[in-house]
Amino acid sequence: MLCWLDGLPANALPPADRGLAYGDGLFETLAVKDGRPRLLQRHLARLAEGCQRLAITLDVSAVADELERFAARLGEGVAKLIVTRGDGQRGYAPAVNQPARRILLGSPFPAYPKENAAQGIALFPCRTRLAEQPLLAGLKHLNRLEQVLARAEWQGSEYAEGLMCDSSGRLIEGVFSNLFMVKNGELLTPALNRCGVAGVMRGLIIDLAASAHIALQVRDIDGHELPAACEVFVCNSLYGIWPVRRFAAQSWQVGALTRTLQRLLATAED
Amino acid sequence: MLCWLDGLPANALPPADRGLAYGDGLFETLAVKDGRPRLLQRHLARLAEGCQRLAITLDVSAVADELERFAARLGEGVAKLIVTRGDGQRGYAPAVNQPARRILLGSPFPAYPKENAAQGIALFPCRTRLAEQPLLAGLKHLNRLEQVLARAEWQGSEYAEGLMCDSSGRLIEGVFSNLFMVKNGELLTPALNRCGVAGVMRGLIIDLAASAHIALQVRDIDGHELPAACEVFVCNSLYGIWPVRRFAAQSWQVGALTRTLQRLLATAED
Repeated sequence: MLCWLDGLPANALPPADRGLAYGDGLFETLAVKDGRPRLLQRHLARLAEGCQRLAITLDVSAVADELERFAARLGEGVAKLIVTRGDGQRGYAPAVNQPARRILLGSPFPAYPKENAAQGIALFPCRTRLAEQPLLAGLKHLNRLEQVLARAEWQGSEYAEGLMCDSSGRLIEGVFSNLFMVKNGELLTPALNRCGVAGVMRGLIIDLAASAHIALQVRDIDGHELPAACEVFVCNSLYGIWPVRRFAAQSWQVGALTRTLQRLLATAED
Repeated sequence: MLCWLDGLPANALPPADRGLAYGDGLFETLAVKDGRPRLLQRHLARLAEGCQRLAITLDVSAVADELERFAARLGEGVAKLIVTRGDGQRGYAPAVNQPARRILLGSPFPAYPKENAAQGIALFPCRTRLAEQPLLAGLKHLNRLEQVLARAEWQGSEYAEGLMCDSSGRLIEGVFSNLFMVKNGELLTPALNRCGVAGVMRGLIIDLAASAHIALQVRDIDGHELPAACEVFVCNSLYGIWPVRRFAAQSWQVGALTRTLQRLLATAED
């Protein structure tokens, strides 16, 4: 596995790192194609916001350069960037202005079945709920035990993703995806101000919808609204858009708006 | 820093560890005195419960042996044991029956002021709330960003600890301690079935109170109940019991029951 630590090839991490001790950090998962990191500016913008909210000191322009060099070396696959607050002493108190540690891990592109994007997927109904924590909502931070528990709820290939609600029963996201639906001709995606990860692909789709004059609302969506949806899809920055064909007793055809967005995405990606 | 990886001296961690990637693991912080880990059986029991709830495969008896050897080598100080699910591939899905990784870190005993236990401390009112997640409540898992945010709320030595409430305003715990109070002659400590860490020292104090026929309730405690308390203290397995002398506009004398428990603790610890 290709691995860089603070810009240099490495195969090991200092054991006092606060990323390990407390999950005190953030990550980004970037598709790498033709030696280039895709959607780089969007990933960097989210990372910068996360660092600002967690008061992690990171030189984002240096990270941009590092990601480009790493992607050139990787060629094709996935670049996972982990940013931690760096080494800690005992105790939770964070050192002030300590420069963040960057860990870059390269891996092959996941072997997603082609049918997922073409014919759609079945969504597993996860029992694991997302706790509501506004201070961390939206961030792609390293505290991901809820996702680990949710992903462990199903095995096998029948379900390509799982749907997670918050503790109040609102629809939030997939385990590793964001969620969209179409209702009354309008695109809807859950507000992520209490929990959830504000995905880079979600942001791109919101912008594409605006450019194409597709009505879109970002709002709280109760679980009971799902049956009234006429299209449902999930998205992330690796696979793009997967239509949802089935969830519990509910089933959908792949809808026209979903197809439109898949097409817009195919030409829009940087 | 003394560091062992899976029972052997090491100074680095594999970067694909799921403890770093997702906080997918647990930890224990043990006082080491005269070459022995204190309250070892209680720490191991909590660790075993955590592994069972997170489906992490750990040979707890091997860990006991490892901790005893590590403590003998360390002599005096703090042994921090981190248990992770081990290395991961890309994605949240945990491998089944993968043996856990053990990381042991030794550090000197913290230089807590002697007055903390003798005269009591001031408690900072943290604004950071604990999210309610029953699936993780009570566990000492590696997802600790809430504690990092809470601990960053104050600097300096005026406050030795901070008090955290859950998102509904119930009293839960300190940032690195559990909370007790005395009200109407009865010992109270918050129920930890929605959030919080069920500390080893908390468990010992509950047992000591039972042995000494001190009435005790573990229950939800609303923030508004604090002013009615006649004694308040915090505890953890490193420092034992610190009386709380001040919180916001509230102040207390060190009470008789707090002193009794400090005395019981001094003779009870293994």
